[in-house]
Amino acid sequence: MAVSTVYTVQSLHSNCSISTPAKTHIGFHQKQVVFFSSGKKTNRRSGNTTITCAADGKTIVIGLAADSGCGKSTFMRRLTSVFGGAAEPPKGGNPDSNTLISDVTTVICLDDYHSLDRTGRKEKGVTALDPKANDFDLMYEQVKAIKEGIAVDKPIYNHVTGLLDPAEVIKPPKILVIEGLHPMYDARVRDLLDFSIYLDISNDVKFAWKIQRDMAERGHSLESIKASIEARKPDFDAYIDPQKQYADAVIEVLPTQLIPDDNGGKVLRVRLIMKEGIKNFNPVYLFDEGSTISWIPCGRKLTCSYPGIKFTYGPDTYFGQEVSVLEMDGQFDRLDELIYVESHLSNLSSKFYGEVTQQMLKHADFPGSNNGTGFFQTIVGLKIRDLYEQIVASRASAPVEAKA
Amino acid sequence: MAVSTVYTVQSLHSNCSISTPAKTHIGFHQKQVVFFSSGKKTNRRSGNTTITCAADGKTIVIGLAADSGCGKSTFMRRLTSVFGGAAEPPKGGNPDSNTLISDVTTVICLDDYHSLDRTGRKEKGVTALDPKANDFDLMYEQVKAIKEGIAVDKPIYNHVTGLLDPAEVIKPPKILVIEGLHPMYDARVRDLLDFSIYLDISNDVKFAWKIQRDMAERGHSLESIKASIEARKPDFDAYIDPQKQYADAVIEVLPTQLIPDDNGGKVLRVRLIMKEGIKNFNPVYLFDEGSTISWIPCGRKLTCSYPGIKFTYGPDTYFGQEVSVLEMDGQFDRLDELIYVESHLSNLSSKFYGEVTQQMLKHADFPGSNNGTGFFQTIVGLKIRDLYEQIVASRASAPVEAKA
Repeated sequence: MAVSTVYTVQSLHSNCSISTPAKTHIGFHQKQVVFFSSGKKTNRRSGNTTITCAADGKTIVIGLAADSGCGKSTFMRRLTSVFGGAAEPPKGGNPDSNTLISDVTTVICLDDYHSLDRTGRKEKGVTALDPKANDFDLMYEQVKAIKEGIAVDKPIYNHVTGLLDPAEVIKPPKILVIEGLHPMYDARVRDLLDFSIYLDISNDVKFAWKIQRDMAERGHSLESIKASIEARKPDFDAYIDPQKQYADAVIEVLPTQLIPDDNGGKVLRVRLIMKEGIKNFNPVYLFDEGSTISWIPCGRKLTCSYPGIKFTYGPDTYFGQEVSVLEMDGQFDRLDELIYVESHLSNLSSKFYGEVTQQMLKHADFPGSNNGTGFFQTIVGLKIRDLYEQIVASRASAPVEAKA
Repeated sequence: MAVSTVYTVQSLHSNCSISTPAKTHIGFHQKQVVFFSSGKKTNRRSGNTTITCAADGKTIVIGLAADSGCGKSTFMRRLTSVFGGAAEPPKGGNPDSNTLISDVTTVICLDDYHSLDRTGRKEKGVTALDPKANDFDLMYEQVKAIKEGIAVDKPIYNHVTGLLDPAEVIKPPKILVIEGLHPMYDARVRDLLDFSIYLDISNDVKFAWKIQRDMAERGHSLESIKASIEARKPDFDAYIDPQKQYADAVIEVLPTQLIPDDNGGKVLRVRLIMKEGIKNFNPVYLFDEGSTISWIPCGRKLTCSYPGIKFTYGPDTYFGQEVSVLEMDGQFDRLDELIYVESHLSNLSSKFYGEVTQQMLKHADFPGSNNGTGFFQTIVGLKIRDLYEQIVASRASAPVEAKA
C-alpha cells in the first residue's frame, strides 16, 4: 500500500506557516516534514511541528488529459521550457519516478494514483482507463494539499514493473501540472484546476502513430496494434474522452486536408480550441478577433513547399460552450515560415518578438516541432505562463484575506 | 461630319505654351483657341497664335470599359466625387452632351466617336459594338492631343436622336476619363492610358439587371430582353470582352455564393482584380499582402444580417499576368459593417480614416452603394486619385526634360 502524508496548515496566506501534522480523514501517517520557501528548499524537523511554505502563496494547478502515447511528456517538456530550466526527475529518488521537477513547475503523472497495480487490474479485469483502477480520493486530497502549499507523499506507479512503489515527496511548486488519463474525471479534482487542457488525438492519427512506433520500432504486428486500440476503445470512450468538455483548451490532432485522402499521420491538421470567458486566459487570434478567417500564408512574401500551410480561425461552439478555434494544417519546413506565422498571430502572450519560434527551435528535435502540435503546445505554454503571472499579480495587489 | 480641331504645341513641360494651330494629318481646321491654366479658364485670340495650358502639365488619361447599362456613369460619379465637386455637362452646350466636367476630371463617352449614326449602322447592318461603327483614328488623335495639353473639338453622338451632333470643345483637364465600349480596343488609344479599368458584369447579373430595368421599369417582355442580349453577344464577345486582358483593374460582378442557386442579381459577389507591377498603383490587400485569405467579418465583434458578408483576397493570374484579387460577397446593411470592413483593408489610398465609408454614405442613393460594386468603385476612385498625385509629385521632382 502506498503511504502518503497530508499536512494541514494554520494559515495559507502567509508565505510560511507553522503546523502540527495531523492524520487526515483518509488515514495517512506523518512521514516527512518539509521546509520549502521561495525556491530554496531545506528540511527541518522540530519535534512535532512542521514549517511549510508555498513558494509564492497558493500553487497554480494545471490539468493535462490525454491517452497514453499521445505526446503528453513532450508537451510537458515544452511547457516547463517556457519557464526556463530543464525538467528532471526528483534527485536521489526512485529512478522510475514519473515526476518532473523544474524551477517553477512540477509535473506529476496521475498513473501514480492507480489503486490497482498491473496484476491487480488483470485479476479484476479492468484497464488502467477504468476509474475503478484509480484512487480519486487520494488524488483529490493530495492535489488539494499541494494547492494549499502543503507537501505530500505521493505514491509512484512503476511503469517498468507495473507495481506501486514507495511514495515520493512532492513539495508545493509555483505551478503543479497533473497529467494523465483522468485529471478532469473527478469533479473535486477538476474544481482544483486553474486551467485544463485536453490532447485529443483522432483515431486515424492515433492509429498511424501506433503503427509508426509499435510496428516500425517495436516489431508488433498490424493486427496486434489494431486489437490493442480496439480493446482500449470502450473504456477510453466512456472515461477519458468525455473529459474534453471540461477543458479550457483542447488540442485536436487530425489528418491533413491538404493532401486528398491522406491519413499517414505525418502531415497533420491541428486545432487549438480555446474556451471563451476563462479568467486570465485570452484566446489567440488571427488578424481579426471574433471573425471567421482562413489564411494560406504561402504566397508572394513566403514560399512554402508542398503541401503548404493553411490556417483557419474563428468562433465556434464546443459542447455548447463558446470557443475560439485556431487551426493549422500542414507543416513548417523552414524557419522563416515559422516566424512569419508567429508574427501574424495575436494574443500569443509572448514576452518578446519571436518567442514561440525561439522555443520551437530550442526543441527542434521534439516530436511535432514542425507542425501544429508543437506550435500550439508552445503557445499553450506561453498562455499558462501568462495565466500564472496574472494570478500572482492579482494576488499581490489584493488585500490579505482573513483566515477562515 | 463632325468638325474637330487638334492643336500642336511647342513644349508640353512648361505649364503654358505658345503654339501655331496647324492642320493635322486627319485634316481638321482650327475652330477655337483655348487658354486654360490651373483651373481658371479664359479664351484668348491673338492672330494665329494660341496659348494652351494643361492644368498641371500633361493630362492623366484613364480608360473605363464596359457594356452599356453596366453602371459606368455611376462609377464616374463616384470617381469625380473623390476629387470633390459635382460633375456636370458642359455649360451652355448641347443638352444631349455625354460629357461630364468637374474641377479635376472630364469624363468623355466614347460613343461620341461613333462614325456611323443609328441609321448608318442599321443600313450597314453593324452594331455600335462593332469597330467599323467607330472612328478610332479620331479617338486616338483627340485623346493624344488632350493628353498633351491641347483642347479639341470632339463630336457628340446624340443618344436621344441617334444622330451625330456638332462638336463640343474639350479642354485638357487634370484627369481625362474615356469611358465606353472601346477604350482599350485600339492599341494606340490603349497606349495613351495611364490607368485602365474594365467593368465585367457576368451574363447572369446582366440578365437580372436588364429584367429589372427593361421589364419592370420599361414594360419590355422577357423574350425581347433575352433576344436583345443574344443579339449583342457575338459582337460583345468579339470586340468588348477581350479588352479586359489589358485592364489594370477589373471589377467582376457575379451572383452571390452565399445563397445557394441565387442569381437574382440583388445580392452580388464582386471581385476587384488588380494587376501587379503597375507603376503608381499598389493593390489593396486584406490582412497580409500576397497571402490567400478568406474573412467573414460578421462574428463576435460585428453582427450581420443574412446572408452576411464574406471577403476573400489573394494572388492569382489573369490572362497570364500576376494579379491580386479582392472579393466581396454579400452586402452592407448598416454603417458599422462598412466602416468595420474598411478599417481592415490596407493600401486603400484614403486620406483619412473612414474616407471610403464617407464617400459611400455621400452617395448612398447610387446603385450598388450597399455592395461590392459601389465599394470597389469608390476604392478604385481613391487609387486613381493616388496615382494622379504620385504622377504629379514625380513630375514636380523630376528635372525638366528636353523637348524632342
